[in-house]
Amino acid sequence: MRFTSEQRLDDGALEREFTLGGIPGILWTPGSAPEPAPLILVGHPGGLDRMYPRVAARARHSVAEGFAAATIELPGSGDRPRSAAADRARADLRRALEAGEPVDDGIVDRLVLPLVEQAVPEWRAALDALLALPGIGGPVGYSGGVIAIGTRLAAVEPRISAALLYAGSFVPRAIVEQARRVTIPLLVLLQWDDEHNDRQMALDLFDAFGSEEKTLHANMGGHTGVPWFEGDDGNRFFARHLR
Amino acid sequence: MRFTSEQRLDDGALEREFTLGGIPGILWTPGSAPEPAPLILVGHPGGLDRMYPRVAARARHSVAEGFAAATIELPGSGDRPRSAAADRARADLRRALEAGEPVDDGIVDRLVLPLVEQAVPEWRAALDALLALPGIGGPVGYSGGVIAIGTRLAAVEPRISAALLYAGSFVPRAIVEQARRVTIPLLVLLQWDDEHNDRQMALDLFDAFGSEEKTLHANMGGHTGVPWFEGDDGNRFFARHLR
Repeated sequence: MRFTSEQRLDDGALEREFTLGGIPGILWTPGSAPEPAPLILVGHPGGLDRMYPRVAARARHSVAEGFAAATIELPGSGDRPRSAAADRARADLRRALEAGEPVDDGIVDRLVLPLVEQAVPEWRAALDALLALPGIGGPVGYSGGVIAIGTRLAAVEPRISAALLYAGSFVPRAIVEQARRVTIPLLVLLQWDDEHNDRQMALDLFDAFGSEEKTLHANMGGHTGVPWFEGDDGNRFFARHLR
Repeated sequence: MRFTSEQRLDDGALEREFTLGGIPGILWTPGSAPEPAPLILVGHPGGLDRMYPRVAARARHSVAEGFAAATIELPGSGDRPRSAAADRARADLRRALEAGEPVDDGIVDRLVLPLVEQAVPEWRAALDALLALPGIGGPVGYSGGVIAIGTRLAAVEPRISAALLYAGSFVPRAIVEQARRVTIPLLVLLQWDDEHNDRQMALDLFDAFGSEEKTLHANMGGHTGVPWFEGDDGNRFFARHLR
């Protein structure tokens, strides 16, 4: 892990960009912390440059409560090499949606499964590097999308103790099956009128998680309309489980 | 409104039993409050004696945050005169559930509509009396079940500014139609595995509410298994809308 820039933000938090095995990422840490800060991995749909305002706002909201937060670019997004197969699957998905056709399981599998297969080991490698830094401790939370990545991570990575997942419906059946193996506390956010997602499929995925403590927060509005108070609720969820 | 008992609780709150037009009720007020406390009406399924531990715990949790809280007995419950028609409808409902039959709309209407028709004016009369007391101000929130009563109150009583409703599925169609007229902020609690309620009907009712700000919190477990942190979430919901 190599830091490429460092910036002290006006709220005292430290924002550092890094690369790890050629993958760009960002780490935010509290201005001062008496002890190692629990770490929250901040998920996103890919394209860190474009997503920066929303990802950084969420990360800094958590850092203000004493957490460390970090994110990495997804495979095929930003400056990372694109996947021709994923591009084809994405085009097929767009065609199906524009034609008002049901989205074939095969398209979803071709789009999401390779992404999950590649991204999950990258997030785990990032976790190795981040937890080796001074001032960052466990336990670890995962927060955000892509829900298929968050679900797989929650199922296979024992260092992740709690996850706040953003509901999405284009989830391969293989991932829904893995959801049954997830046992950590979950908070799932669902935008009730999400133009990108099917509500029933999101509810079915929530139902599938094996966790004894899982909570769904559904709010009105579209994909990007998550209300501000969910940021506070998310911090309290992680405070309950990461401290 | 006539107070019949008064008790200073160990957390400093004042608990007073009252009767109003022959209906028993309980009022909880903060030990000290610099200004009139916003009032939360605490709903319940009827039978205040039996429900007292849960109702009082919820009320006192709110009073600890500076709210006043009050409840009244429901028609046909506790020592209030029973309704032969409601008893027949309840027996019909129990028979249908035990036989595993679908519950006829007619049974639900016969059970719930007369209860709503009688209870809502009683809660409104209680509101008149409570808001005339020193130390209690507006705005007013409604918190709890019966969701049909809370829905009708939220639709017709302009002094109610926000409502936290406990999802239930035996809701007459007439009430679902009224839900579309509700525009105040709502927080709806749903127990995902509620043995007394149908999940899909509860989700449909949530969908029907006309409010621009409405949030669903779904948690695992049965009817009485609402997790403790929802008490804090409820207080924050009312703090956002009643202060």
